[in-house]
Amino acid sequence: MHLTSETVADGVREQLFMIGDVPGALWTPAAGSGPRPLVLIGHGGGQHKKGWEVVSRAFPYVRSCGYAVAAIDAPGTGDRPEHPEIQRLVELVDGRTAAGEPVGSAWPELCETVASQLIPDWQTTLDTLQTLDYVGADQPVGYYGLSQGGEMGIRLVAAEPRITAAVLGLVGSEWLTEAAARITVPVEFVLQWDDEGAPRDSVMRLFDALGSAEKTLHANPGSHFRVPLFEIDSSVRFFARHLGTAGGS
Amino acid sequence: MHLTSETVADGVREQLFMIGDVPGALWTPAAGSGPRPLVLIGHGGGQHKKGWEVVSRAFPYVRSCGYAVAAIDAPGTGDRPEHPEIQRLVELVDGRTAAGEPVGSAWPELCETVASQLIPDWQTTLDTLQTLDYVGADQPVGYYGLSQGGEMGIRLVAAEPRITAAVLGLVGSEWLTEAAARITVPVEFVLQWDDEGAPRDSVMRLFDALGSAEKTLHANPGSHFRVPLFEIDSSVRFFARHLGTAGGS
Repeated sequence: MHLTSETVADGVREQLFMIGDVPGALWTPAAGSGPRPLVLIGHGGGQHKKGWEVVSRAFPYVRSCGYAVAAIDAPGTGDRPEHPEIQRLVELVDGRTAAGEPVGSAWPELCETVASQLIPDWQTTLDTLQTLDYVGADQPVGYYGLSQGGEMGIRLVAAEPRITAAVLGLVGSEWLTEAAARITVPVEFVLQWDDEGAPRDSVMRLFDALGSAEKTLHANPGSHFRVPLFEIDSSVRFFARHLGTAGGS
Repeated sequence: MHLTSETVADGVREQLFMIGDVPGALWTPAAGSGPRPLVLIGHGGGQHKKGWEVVSRAFPYVRSCGYAVAAIDAPGTGDRPEHPEIQRLVELVDGRTAAGEPVGSAWPELCETVASQLIPDWQTTLDTLQTLDYVGADQPVGYYGLSQGGEMGIRLVAAEPRITAAVLGLVGSEWLTEAAARITVPVEFVLQWDDEGAPRDSVMRLFDALGSAEKTLHANPGSHFRVPLFEIDSSVRFFARHLGTAGGS
């Protein structure tokens, strides 16, 4: 792990890092030392580790709960090099969408291509962050990700037993049904009632498929990008309930 | 308004009252004086003003937010006299249900019969409680009610402009669609995914019909009576967001 920058703002320390060739960001309480729960945030499609969606969750998680929060760039985004195959598939999907054509198999292929690299990247990142004395190896781990962050999150949470609670949603991919069924940890699942990209029936089927005994669907009116801000507060409460809180914030 | 008893426990003052021939309960902070937001709680079918569902909400609302909380017995329940027509309809519904027969028009008739008395009772209760100096006339008013308390709540919230936020749910009656469409205040709407009494599709149609710009559906697995306890905390946050909080708790 190589730290490339460290800054402090509003009581939150932000460290940018490279783990191998994966760039990431870690937010922790500026005044904090010692182990604490960790929340991984998966960014949305076309976004990156420091996008608004990520930072707007990371800061309240650190400040309200004393958590460590980490995000990494998905392949081909942020500070990662261009990824020709991902770029080809994104252009195919965007072109077909713009032409009003069905995107066909390009979309699952894109998701699969990103996931085949990003899931191992997340696991390596988690291995490394847990060696830090201000994160720790025996602390609970949560995951937050909507849209493409939900698409990847369902795969990651299904594969990664260290993650014990997750906020997921804005995704209804039918190819995720089996992975969803393998998830047994508590989940808060976010749905936008008028989401054209992830139609409500498909999102509800994926919610239904989750193997978790505790799972809550939160549905709000509006389109894909209009998740109400009070859902951030709700996710704080959800993680506090399942991961506990830490001092030092 | 005639007070019939007053007790204090855990920092909460409970006053039992009669307003005309309607028996009710009012919970306020024991140490509190001055006006405060008021939450009305509508009890479920076959329950009464001091049932567990009511009290388990009333106490956190008073203790966390400093609210006044009130509940009244629906016609034919609690300390109210038997109501022959309601009793006849309840027996008809129960008999048909036990026999595995469709309940037919008995159910909407029962709801209508209860509502024709209960909605005016609630409005008279609200008029009277707002004259108390420890409730006040210019404070926000919320309503909480699931199941039969949701059935009645949709009618009450649609009819009563003083109510500015409501937690409703566990109801999917198709005859409530028009009333739901008249509701424009923020709503948290509770659904149980495996509810046989209020099937999820019918509950979602009613959620969809709500005229509110801010409305959130909270769906959890399990049957009608298995709403998770963390939804109480969620309702505290919902009311705090929309009604504000008061001192004196």
